[in-house]
Amino acid sequence: MATIFSKIIAGELPSHKIAENDRFFAFLDINPLVVGHTLVVPKQEVDYIFDMEDKDLADMHLFAKRIALAIEKAIPCKRVGVAVMGLEVPHAHIHLIPIQNEADMIISNPKLKLSADKLAEIASKIKEKL
Amino acid sequence: MATIFSKIIAGELPSHKIAENDRFFAFLDINPLVVGHTLVVPKQEVDYIFDMEDKDLADMHLFAKRIALAIEKAIPCKRVGVAVMGLEVPHAHIHLIPIQNEADMIISNPKLKLSADKLAEIASKIKEKL
Repeated sequence: MATIFSKIIAGELPSHKIAENDRFFAFLDINPLVVGHTLVVPKQEVDYIFDMEDKDLADMHLFAKRIALAIEKAIPCKRVGVAVMGLEVPHAHIHLIPIQNEADMIISNPKLKLSADKLAEIASKIKEKL
Repeated sequence: MATIFSKIIAGELPSHKIAENDRFFAFLDINPLVVGHTLVVPKQEVDYIFDMEDKDLADMHLFAKRIALAIEKAIPCKRVGVAVMGLEVPHAHIHLIPIQNEADMIISNPKLKLSADKLAEIASKIKEKL
């Protein structure tokens, strides 16, 4: 069965897309820790990030770097943090989290509730900086 | 002034080394969230991970992958999580954290107090799996 992320990539579920190429896809986390919290996923389903082939893993991190640099230009932050946990959705994903301090990376923090309009506005701002 | 990590790499400060090559260095976090919590750093001082050149960033993640796979064989865990925050030490570093659940990645969790002997034993176990 397709993962929720594969459904997003296929357009079967809506998302606020930031960027994609033939192998990777970036979109806003619908339950963000902070404004600009973005997920980067491979289009090919793989559960565990360290099961990825070296070239795929390296290229995903370089794709994520491009996104992170755009997030940083679009969203006020000190830098963009990176997290990979991966126990909840069986499809490898990199969290990119624009942080003001390390506490912004505490994954148990309450999630923001943002309207679809607000998310669309954030996605648009980040895309402008790509 | 050299960062604390550069002093560790140079051997001016002690560490429980896991592995190194000509460009990267991995060692146990002295204040681990969990047993096996490891840091991966570039030997060349760079503050912000996304300021690294593409090749260096990609190769650091591939070096980290090798370490993560060894951690996973040595330390009971569901998988190895990845985190990069980088606001406390101005020398880019990847946290590799063997997790049983996502809550193990909560960076504000109390840190373990492990003796030097215990850390040496953990490092030895991980190195055996490289």
